[in-house]
Amino acid sequence: MNEFDLIARYFHRPGTVADLGVGDDAALLTPAPGQQLAISVDMLVAGRHFFEDVDPFTLGHKSLAVNLSDLAAMGATPRWFTLALALPHADAAWLEAFSRGMFALAEAHGLELVGGDTTRGPLTISIQIAGEVPKGSALLRGGAQADDDIWVSGQLGAAAAAVAQRLEGLPLSAGALAQCLPRLQQPTPRVALGQGLRGLAHACLDISDGLLGDLAHICQRSGLSAQLRAATIPVADALAELDHVTALQLALAGGDDYELCFCAPAAARQAIVDLAAQCDVPVTRVGRMAAGDAVVVVLDAQGLPLPTSRKAYDHFR
Amino acid sequence: MNEFDLIARYFHRPGTVADLGVGDDAALLTPAPGQQLAISVDMLVAGRHFFEDVDPFTLGHKSLAVNLSDLAAMGATPRWFTLALALPHADAAWLEAFSRGMFALAEAHGLELVGGDTTRGPLTISIQIAGEVPKGSALLRGGAQADDDIWVSGQLGAAAAAVAQRLEGLPLSAGALAQCLPRLQQPTPRVALGQGLRGLAHACLDISDGLLGDLAHICQRSGLSAQLRAATIPVADALAELDHVTALQLALAGGDDYELCFCAPAAARQAIVDLAAQCDVPVTRVGRMAAGDAVVVVLDAQGLPLPTSRKAYDHFR
Repeated sequence: MNEFDLIARYFHRPGTVADLGVGDDAALLTPAPGQQLAISVDMLVAGRHFFEDVDPFTLGHKSLAVNLSDLAAMGATPRWFTLALALPHADAAWLEAFSRGMFALAEAHGLELVGGDTTRGPLTISIQIAGEVPKGSALLRGGAQADDDIWVSGQLGAAAAAVAQRLEGLPLSAGALAQCLPRLQQPTPRVALGQGLRGLAHACLDISDGLLGDLAHICQRSGLSAQLRAATIPVADALAELDHVTALQLALAGGDDYELCFCAPAAARQAIVDLAAQCDVPVTRVGRMAAGDAVVVVLDAQGLPLPTSRKAYDHFR
Repeated sequence: MNEFDLIARYFHRPGTVADLGVGDDAALLTPAPGQQLAISVDMLVAGRHFFEDVDPFTLGHKSLAVNLSDLAAMGATPRWFTLALALPHADAAWLEAFSRGMFALAEAHGLELVGGDTTRGPLTISIQIAGEVPKGSALLRGGAQADDDIWVSGQLGAAAAAVAQRLEGLPLSAGALAQCLPRLQQPTPRVALGQGLRGLAHACLDISDGLLGDLAHICQRSGLSAQLRAATIPVADALAELDHVTALQLALAGGDDYELCFCAPAAARQAIVDLAAQCDVPVTRVGRMAAGDAVVVVLDAQGLPLPTSRKAYDHFR
């Protein structure tokens, strides 16, 4: 199997979005009038972002899901993506499963692979995604206002628990691990929720590095602080068997959840609950934005700040 | 230096092209009306696409140049790019030089970095670039016609000679090597030439894997064959000290030249020569397209086919 066979066999699907897709020096696309393009890129490295022995089907899913999650956080409609892929060798079974996982998610979102580059090298996956959003309506990090509710979608901490079980020996039962692993390996990007939040939320991002660290970005950009109420954090059900402090820390500071965190005025509460029901995604109010200097505090039931020991993941720390 | 410091220090420049650049979940851009987007991506892996000890300034240049070359081959105007970067460690001196080389070329083309991802991992650079081209006017691979002239820009073979000197002990004098290395390390994307060829050329691509292999893509897409005349191939001056067969093979089959190869009707000859003079890029007619089954033949002075022993580079061969 040479490079061109590999691309033709696994990464060339007939498309309808692009004017010209895979196979020339560049793809050609016609953006819809009145829309802004939202563009994001991620790079996943074996042994750092995923375990090298991970099921390639779920890896194909996840590689695209993390990018879809970025578009969800902007409220954008996914349109097309490119794939840059370094592989140690051309393994047909691996490629078949990887591409199947990637395309299954792409097709569920009407998203088209329009270009790529395939080379030999340490297993590394970089996807760039582009979506469209009506001009001026994207959900940014800097728009939060004092007294906004802080919301999160889904539950938090399961993905981080699966990582901690493997790397740090976190004592998770087999049953709990079986619940956590799919959250790590096949996160669900909240694309419909993000689109629905346009006009409702003042600010939004996706939780890739942990709620505390990611919410700090909204604080910094918005010039506000955030107060989270510990009792309201939607800790993943699978973590119920852990001690409460450990479970809460995983939920607050664990990465890889790919849920949305967003800020919205109290007047939008009912609309947000209705939207979430329509999208079949649970949402939870977990705190409020306040004046102050870009800090995130977590308050206990008495309203006192809890110590939080984990910070957002930093690749170069 | 943490991940956010690193991005702020080396990869955050004030821009004017993007509505929203580096720092949110996605960049926001407004494409110009009536234009198609041309999108391309490349991935460069240390030890495969470049020597690990390469000057980081030239590596920053080259990483972007190979993408600019793809847009040049489409006749597109470069607009913005994203950078996904895996680094073994955060080395300030390396990052300073790499980003300086990358931005020097970007700024020369009015090109803006709008997003990225930085992670720890084996040194890998993936850049995706986007440009604009008036709808329907992009230079494709499939438009060549029988009797079109085949042209190449610049000279060929110097970059491949520099690689062969290091990897295979090709006997190059120090003086010749000094001429070849800049062609390998800092190729010049032919952006203005590509844009000027819109309306003149029927087909175009850039020579990244070697003229023979790349021209074969035009043949396949256009349903034609190509006849090159060996005596007309613009072999790099620096290769004059090599035996003729070796020099010609490097020029025909060596990669990394990033010159343009294009097909155009005889009626466009004078306009092409004038355009090349205006762009200050030499161009040479090296053969003609003909009916036939997607083969590239190289003819000697007597019009007899020469054996050609090198094929285009295949990462999985």
